[in-house]
Amino acid sequence: MLLSRIRGPEDLKALSEEELHELVEELRSEIIRVTAETGGHLASSLGAVELIVALHRVFDSPRDRILFDVGHQAYAHKLLTGRQDRFHTLRQEGGLSGFTKVSESEHDAITVGHASTSLANALGMAVARDLQGQDHKIVAVIGDGALTGGMALAALNKIGEMGKDMLIVLNDNEMSISPNVGALAGYFKTLQVQKWVQDAEKLGKGFLERISPRLFELADRAKEATKMILHQENPFYAWNLRYVGPVDGHDLKGLVYLLEKLKDLSGPTLLHIVTKKGKGYKVAEEDPTHWHGASPFNPEAPTKKKGSYTWSLAFGDAVTELAEREEKLVVLTPAMREGSGLVRYAQTWPDRYLDVGIAEDVAVTTAAGLALAGMKPVVAIYSTFLQRAVDQVIHDVAIEKLNVVFAIDRAGLVGADGPTHHGVFDLAFLRTVPGMQIAAPKDALELRAMLTAALEQNGPVALRWPRGAVEPAPEGAWPECAWGRWEVLKPGSEVYLLAFGKTLGYALEAAGADPRVGVVNARFLKPLDREVLAELAANHALVTVEDHQLAGGFGAAVLEALEELGLRPEVRRLGLPDRFTDQGKVESLHAKAGIDAAGIRRALAELGVNVNVSAPRAG
Amino acid sequence: MLLSRIRGPEDLKALSEEELHELVEELRSEIIRVTAETGGHLASSLGAVELIVALHRVFDSPRDRILFDVGHQAYAHKLLTGRQDRFHTLRQEGGLSGFTKVSESEHDAITVGHASTSLANALGMAVARDLQGQDHKIVAVIGDGALTGGMALAALNKIGEMGKDMLIVLNDNEMSISPNVGALAGYFKTLQVQKWVQDAEKLGKGFLERISPRLFELADRAKEATKMILHQENPFYAWNLRYVGPVDGHDLKGLVYLLEKLKDLSGPTLLHIVTKKGKGYKVAEEDPTHWHGASPFNPEAPTKKKGSYTWSLAFGDAVTELAEREEKLVVLTPAMREGSGLVRYAQTWPDRYLDVGIAEDVAVTTAAGLALAGMKPVVAIYSTFLQRAVDQVIHDVAIEKLNVVFAIDRAGLVGADGPTHHGVFDLAFLRTVPGMQIAAPKDALELRAMLTAALEQNGPVALRWPRGAVEPAPEGAWPECAWGRWEVLKPGSEVYLLAFGKTLGYALEAAGADPRVGVVNARFLKPLDREVLAELAANHALVTVEDHQLAGGFGAAVLEALEELGLRPEVRRLGLPDRFTDQGKVESLHAKAGIDAAGIRRALAELGVNVNVSAPRAG
Repeated sequence: MLLSRIRGPEDLKALSEEELHELVEELRSEIIRVTAETGGHLASSLGAVELIVALHRVFDSPRDRILFDVGHQAYAHKLLTGRQDRFHTLRQEGGLSGFTKVSESEHDAITVGHASTSLANALGMAVARDLQGQDHKIVAVIGDGALTGGMALAALNKIGEMGKDMLIVLNDNEMSISPNVGALAGYFKTLQVQKWVQDAEKLGKGFLERISPRLFELADRAKEATKMILHQENPFYAWNLRYVGPVDGHDLKGLVYLLEKLKDLSGPTLLHIVTKKGKGYKVAEEDPTHWHGASPFNPEAPTKKKGSYTWSLAFGDAVTELAEREEKLVVLTPAMREGSGLVRYAQTWPDRYLDVGIAEDVAVTTAAGLALAGMKPVVAIYSTFLQRAVDQVIHDVAIEKLNVVFAIDRAGLVGADGPTHHGVFDLAFLRTVPGMQIAAPKDALELRAMLTAALEQNGPVALRWPRGAVEPAPEGAWPECAWGRWEVLKPGSEVYLLAFGKTLGYALEAAGADPRVGVVNARFLKPLDREVLAELAANHALVTVEDHQLAGGFGAAVLEALEELGLRPEVRRLGLPDRFTDQGKVESLHAKAGIDAAGIRRALAELGVNVNVSAPRAG
Repeated sequence: MLLSRIRGPEDLKALSEEELHELVEELRSEIIRVTAETGGHLASSLGAVELIVALHRVFDSPRDRILFDVGHQAYAHKLLTGRQDRFHTLRQEGGLSGFTKVSESEHDAITVGHASTSLANALGMAVARDLQGQDHKIVAVIGDGALTGGMALAALNKIGEMGKDMLIVLNDNEMSISPNVGALAGYFKTLQVQKWVQDAEKLGKGFLERISPRLFELADRAKEATKMILHQENPFYAWNLRYVGPVDGHDLKGLVYLLEKLKDLSGPTLLHIVTKKGKGYKVAEEDPTHWHGASPFNPEAPTKKKGSYTWSLAFGDAVTELAEREEKLVVLTPAMREGSGLVRYAQTWPDRYLDVGIAEDVAVTTAAGLALAGMKPVVAIYSTFLQRAVDQVIHDVAIEKLNVVFAIDRAGLVGADGPTHHGVFDLAFLRTVPGMQIAAPKDALELRAMLTAALEQNGPVALRWPRGAVEPAPEGAWPECAWGRWEVLKPGSEVYLLAFGKTLGYALEAAGADPRVGVVNARFLKPLDREVLAELAANHALVTVEDHQLAGGFGAAVLEALEELGLRPEVRRLGLPDRFTDQGKVESLHAKAGIDAAGIRRALAELGVNVNVSAPRAG
């Protein structure tokens, strides 16, 4: 194994060209072998192997800074920068992050997980470098999807204006070049490499074709395709960037050659490379969407596993059926069709489905526009990505009390994706917004009831559910929803467990059959059910449980309501402590945070109620 | 007066061309007359008068939807849509909003205040229109600054892809066209109007020159200026938009002619107009920055008033002096140099000053890049605009505990700008972030102490101050800061008032000399001073006071700390109730919310402590 001799990027410099090719193959095998065990971002990491080898061959990390946008394509980078021995711990508790992470390695320039942040980071680093009189290189690697995020475009704007030295590698891995165009592109590539010193940036075909699909249609219509490509508009040029490309991102020799040439240029340069997601692994090449974030699989006989039924699918099924009855319904997603369970919906209601790309702010404000024009928009979004549209929720939706429904998936701890992806801040930033209503269903049936009722509210509603499995609800079942009412599932004589969302299962388990411990499905956080709360608080201690940061979450809302009611019962709040939670299995992380059944029992014991663990479970 | 006969936009249709010109003059006079009394966005509203008259002449509002981005340029729109009789109440309590507001008029298509939201709103409205089989027109008016915001660019991306019918008017009001280029532009304009049906969109010179200032340098160097303009790159074309312009935005006849032509085109069209901020009012034309948001003035003898010393200036002075001692310090702003008090800083330390444009997310993440590269970034930002970068605070700054200092101006209620601009959510969304430290100085001297100490912390720090006046601190004074410690300003035997930030003055006033009422400068919200809190809570009732929403704010943090300490004193929380607060004078709004001295005394009375109002004030 060549790979085992690579202890750091400096070891790449000594390899022959042939050895570099060998290394690429070994990296692919190792990535497939390990992600088969751990799961992970297989397709994008396979697509970036040559690029990463070329970057470490030409640049000197960590002195030179290599920034990977999103960071899920960087497995080869991890393997080349001293982390081979720990690579099998990828995405495991205590193991390597699935993304780049500053605290994990000096070679990881930024901590990431969310898209479109690399360019602003690179700008900051370039300004810092120049102020400090340093001369290292800065390279940002960004995908075509992430580059269409507004934050990346706005950063590009400033980078172009300031003219800072940096290389931006646009890793364009979703376009499919038809043979003709491919041939032309090849021609241009030759042209490009010859003329790059004269700023010959008249190309950019592939990328443009994607962000502007009708461009090519127009050209065809005019029977002037060739002329058009030669003279076509290149937005990077307008942004004052030197543009080079598109070039084949799997041509290792070509990449190394180009990077050597581009390395010492002054000002910002954009190198547009074309890669194939899943490259070198047939199943992943054929279905990169499925193998984007893969569950563990058998590398010899990879099959698409039919996963268990999830909250995402429960939402997707509910909204698909609901759209039949509610013709004003429109569902929006910021590039998360699969993740949000919307494949069936998008197929069934293509005209009432809007994927705005990686632009959460645009998703929310487009929903506002729809609501202002009489429609019933549902924004399907992960909790962690809603962080990117807080102002739009306040400014564009809530001030005018628009009935926009936020279908918040991946709320609470999400597991292997770790701290960048845990959805543990949404309750705090949502419940401070006037008029926002917030609820969490206990199962798929309650989700259907809440979703139906949410579309009839005056003002915005946030419905929140976790990542993971749930029992399917019967198709066609549309129960009524007692809006704003908590549900007392089990009476108790001494203490009530008030559980919001996912932790309700733990609460029931913790209470067991103990007659002293009551359990409440505290499904509405805002408005909070003051009537039931006042009743219970009058002569019971209360324990709140939530899968969210303690600071500002559900428990805090209960404390506020008690203060307003003038009640002072004994209260314990259980939730996530004031630190970022690392990756790991959700159940294990919950146990560590003390919000599982055992943790709840410890809290009960502190209140003097020792639940008999061997007692049969209630319900 | 012609204007007084215009009860709605339909009345414009009957006017002669000459009368339209007369109307323009009357609108300008009325805008100057009223803003002289009320203050307001004078310069941008004066610049948009012809455009607004032309739009209402050609389109049929409210059936056709006219969206004004930011909405501060729309005074003429208010005057033409049935609000003349109330125009003198502009920006006053109970009066007309300074922006467009859906709940104020059927002619206001969106509620705004923040930039860059109009295009996503327009997209949503266009989708809704087409789904509902309607055929009205949608027009979005957006400034050149707002268009460089990432959210606008990302929305443009989707608008181009979907090809929805709409007109986007780019109101380019800051470029200065040199005579030569202006002549060319005039030539192109003629060309354009003749050829617009053939999609002759090869122009766009002025806008490009601004977003990419080096483009023209390059062209000059190559001695190919003319050729370059003819063949230059137009980013709108890449985005699949029909581009028309640039045209003179004060040529009313030309605008009406063009709008009539463009009105019925299918697909998205961008009309690029050039206007002059402050048009028709000499002082405002000459210094549009000063007259952008003007205080009341004498219209006959307008002078730039020297305002009182403000919190913004206190920050600006402090950071300018601090940069002398701390050479790693860099200040960033998202296009708010004047508002954040940074004029002196930017002049003194141009190399360590970064204005990233209207892109709050880019400001925060660029600061992260600076911190990763060893600098000490300070992000100067209004509370309301920090709402646009919540994810960047979490994902790019806090996870890696980067020492980025957020200098948060305009925290709390801001007055005349109203609900879109009140900074009343920041504590809730910031304090849920692990490792975030949050403090509010009581005066300019404490600001200096906190700012100095903040730069030495491990991790991010948010410092927060209100809009308005403050006593200047002595230059060169750098007191020590007892980080994390509350300050007991006045002892009390029965109740302690815990005040965070601006409300401290009210607390002192409310307590007067009453020996039963203590007052604490609870200047650190996170970490909260548990030691002092525990001491006081042991045998006093507590009243928390804050200029922030009650839900999730300072008082909630105190309740949480008490729960964690296992203490249950009697507590009253005073803050803003769970609704959006309208515009008005800050003191009046505070009184209504019950957080002024009188409100605090009422809370004390409920606790059984009736403060003698005539007693002399403490301190």
